[in-house]
Order: sequence, then structure tokens, then C-alpha cells
Amino acid sequence: MEIISSTKNEKIKNISALLKSKKARDEQGVFVIEGIRIFKDTLKTAPEYVESIFISESILGDNITQKDHISLNSTITALFSVSLPDTISVYVVKDSVLDSVSGTVTTQGVIAIVRKPQITLDRLLDISKTVSSINPQKIRLLILENIQDPGNLGTMLRTAEAAGMTGIIMSGNCTDIFSPKVVRSSMGSIFRMPFVYCDDFIKALNKIKEKGITIYAAYLHGGVPYKEIEFDSNYAILIGNEGNGLTDSAVNAANKRVFIPMSGEIESLNAAVAAAILMYK
Amino acid sequence: MEIISSTKNEKIKNISALLKSKKARDEQGVFVIEGIRIFKDTLKTAPEYVESIFISESILGDNITQKDHISLNSTITALFSVSLPDTISVYVVKDSVLDSVSGTVTTQGVIAIVRKPQITLDRLLDISKTVSSINPQKIRLLILENIQDPGNLGTMLRTAEAAGMTGIIMSGNCTDIFSPKVVRSSMGSIFRMPFVYCDDFIKALNKIKEKGITIYAAYLHGGVPYKEIEFDSNYAILIGNEGNGLTDSAVNAANKRVFIPMSGEIESLNAAVAAAILMYK
Repeated sequence: MEIISSTKNEKIKNISALLKSKKARDEQGVFVIEGIRIFKDTLKTAPEYVESIFISESILGDNITQKDHISLNSTITALFSVSLPDTISVYVVKDSVLDSVSGTVTTQGVIAIVRKPQITLDRLLDISKTVSSINPQKIRLLILENIQDPGNLGTMLRTAEAAGMTGIIMSGNCTDIFSPKVVRSSMGSIFRMPFVYCDDFIKALNKIKEKGITIYAAYLHGGVPYKEIEFDSNYAILIGNEGNGLTDSAVNAANKRVFIPMSGEIESLNAAVAAAILMYK
Repeated sequence: MEIISSTKNEKIKNISALLKSKKARDEQGVFVIEGIRIFKDTLKTAPEYVESIFISESILGDNITQKDHISLNSTITALFSVSLPDTISVYVVKDSVLDSVSGTVTTQGVIAIVRKPQITLDRLLDISKTVSSINPQKIRLLILENIQDPGNLGTMLRTAEAAGMTGIIMSGNCTDIFSPKVVRSSMGSIFRMPFVYCDDFIKALNKIKEKGITIYAAYLHGGVPYKEIEFDSNYAILIGNEGNGLTDSAVNAANKRVFIPMSGEIESLNAAVAAAILMYK
């Protein structure tokens, strides 16, 4: 069995490119996941999306002597308690090479290249009716305009799943959901929560309203205090940019404005915190 | 007027050290703030803590010809609409030198060295009775055990102020609240929210309980769903480490356990999100 032992290997260079560049991710239609936990999560939730796996020598340990593809796959299956589709390519990599390519301090010995899940707004609105585990009848969307911080976006994705939201709609200028930091902070939600980017954001808001979904805009300058709101049965929470909040046109496209009261001299909450408070209301 | 034009200047090297090293901050008892907004906030809230200011040539613009300390101070006062105590040392720095030292992409032309606000647990519990702007009679504490992510800590500080909490107690192993990223993400709350590190954390929890403050531990493995809880009039919310949650001894020292229900396959919420949901309950 061949072991990749150089950082100049084309496949290793491509992982670097995919971690660093949105353009590379867009062109190839794939992104990178790192670490044991998300690797197991992904193979459990969306095995058909995994294209290739890069695994460190040391994780394989004594199993490194496995010579053929099939026995390597069974070893990985045994090590991680996951089943690997036969179509997946598996590469064994020298530890130092795998670590050098990683976006994190430690890869934990596993990196995978995964196809991007991508759906349309129409499809999202359709499946949104059925994915909620809390109440299959209700659509509960999180709509994000121009969110720039990858950590915030990942946290919102994770909180949205926990709060039982049924889908996420993002303006085209939101940060890339497939960047390493979002993938990391989303804790696997990226494969469980349907999401879509909409370049014509206002048109998307109008389409959502036409489906009978009430849009509540989180707004700093007036509206109803969130504790006094009774959300309609199908609803969406609309959250704006970290520094500037929502644009006027987004606020105007919403049905209602809602605000979170703040004490002290705080002018605004962190966007992920505001989203969490409203989603958990 | 002398302009600092070298990154090798001792004062500039010291700013770098203070940004990078907790040890340097501890030894000197000071930390660094960067950017116009927190600079104005700090001079408004705690001018007596500001020891020295480093300001870029370009911010001063035509006023750069000011030759003496007093007229430089009045220029800054006019530029930022803040009053500068006479004891503050002001240094003008070449833009490229100030930018090179900064922890952020842009310093916005202002860096200040500020004395750390430090109080004892007893003092915090005393002043906690009076600082709440929502209800001066009630003590509402946020207690943090082993929070490691600076962005999380800064966000919790900011959310705590917005939610009307009266103080923050941290275990000694929490990340340094005076690190650049916490200072940045706290949005000025660092001077408005009383906080204290307690090396003997369990002893601190016991002292808090002795004061008649009920401690609610955020717990993943049972307890009362947070929506069903009526917090006692003086209470504290106890939040644990991002990856591992609370230690057993901290949970056991609390009066009650509370949890936030989660849908989907999410095992835990981001610590700052969980804290926000409970503080805003």
C-alpha cells in the first residue's frame, strides 16, 4: 500500500486549496471536513457525499500492513464504527503531511473531501415542511443577510438544528458555509439542516411570504419586544449583518419587526446570540 | 513633537508583548485596547484606567503640527468627543508602525494601554446588589467554569450586560479576559460589568450560596427544562467548558440543574448561546 509522504503530492495540495479558497470549493463542488467526530457524523448522515478519505498512518496503527483497498476499508469501518461506501477512495498519509495541510491545530488523523449538498429555495421550502422533528406541520426558517463571521454562521447552523428550525436561507453575500471554520463550528449540522444561498435576496423574501410564511425581522430600532410576540404557525426569523444589522430593503420586505431589549450601554447583541434567543423563544 | 517611527521602539515592542502574552499583562497589570469605539467607550466609562494612548499620524491629520502635550490632548478631545485626564501620556506613531503592532487588521489609528480593573469576590457580591439597571434589588450572576474560547467569553460578557446581569465569576482556568480577542468581542462591557477570577472555584460557589444566591447549573444530562424554571430572586447561572461542560464538583455545588431542550442530533449548544438563552429567560 502506498503512503503519501510529501506535502507536494497533488492530492495534498488540493486539500490545501480547498481549505483556503472558496473559488476552489466552488469549481470542484466539494469541501473538506477534518476530525473524527464530523467524519463519523458525515458518514452517518450523508455517506453518499463523501468522495475521498485521507487518514494518518498513526491512526491505522498496526493495521497499516493492510494491503488492499477492501481490507483497508474494513479496518476504517472497525476503527470508527461507520460503514464506508465502496465508491470512496481512501489514502493513507504520513502524520506530519496530514498535519501540515490541516486548518486546525490537529486533524485527529482524518480528513475527507465531501461533495457540497446543494438545493434550490423551492426544494428547501418543500422539504422544510417535513424535516422538523418538533412539529412536522410547521415551517420555521432562519433567514440571514450578509453574515460575515464564519464562527457566527457555524454557531447559527448548530443552534438552528437544536431549536428545531426547518431550514436556513442566506443572502448571496453571506460568508461561505463550506469554509473550514463554519464546517467546524457547525458540529455536523451542515449535513442535517437544509440551506440555500439566494443571490436575489429580496425576491427570495417575497417568495417566502407568498408561501404564507410570516417573516419577523430582528430590528434594533423599534418593533415588538420579542417576549410579547406570538409567532405565526409558519414563520421565519430574519437576522442581519454583525456590524450593520439588516438593510432597509430587507426590513421592509419582512412582515413584522421584533427586538430584544438590552440593558446597560450595549448597542447590539452578537448576531448568533440574537438569532439563538429568537429561535428559542 | 516626536513621532514614533520604528517598530523597534521600546513602547511599541511593549504593546506587542501585551497583546501576545498573558504573562506580560499580568506582570504589568495592564492590557491593550484597539480601535476608536472601545477607546471612546473606555474614556467615557473608566478614564482613570487609561495610562497611555498611541495615535496614528493620519488620524491627527493637519493637527500633527501641535507641539505641546496640552494642545495635543485638546486635539484628541475634539477629534473623539472625549475628555482626556491630564495624567495620560499621548504618543503619536507612524501609521505603518501602529498597524504592524496591532492584533486586528486595522487599529483605526488608536491604541491605548489601560490598567486592569480588578476586584475581589466579596466586593463583586457587594456591588452586584446595586449595578443592575433592571432591578437594583436583585443579584443576577453569570458563573463560568473553564471557558476556553476568547470569542465566547467576550460574547458572554456583552450578552450579560445586555441581559442585565450584575456580575461575572470565572474559574481560575478560564481564558484571559484581557486578551485582545475577548476585549474586542466584549464591545466595551469589560469596563462596565464587574468580574472576578476565583482560583478556588468550588469555595467561591459555596460562598455565593451562603449569600442566599441560588445557583442554576446548565446541565446536559437532566434537570428541569429551562422554560419551566422560575428563577429565585437572587440567582446565578453556571455554565461549563465548551467541549466538556461542567465538572461534577461544580454541578454538585449548584442548587439546581437546568437544561435547554435540543432537537436533531445536536449534542450541545455553543456555550455563549446556552448562556444567552438562560440569561434572557
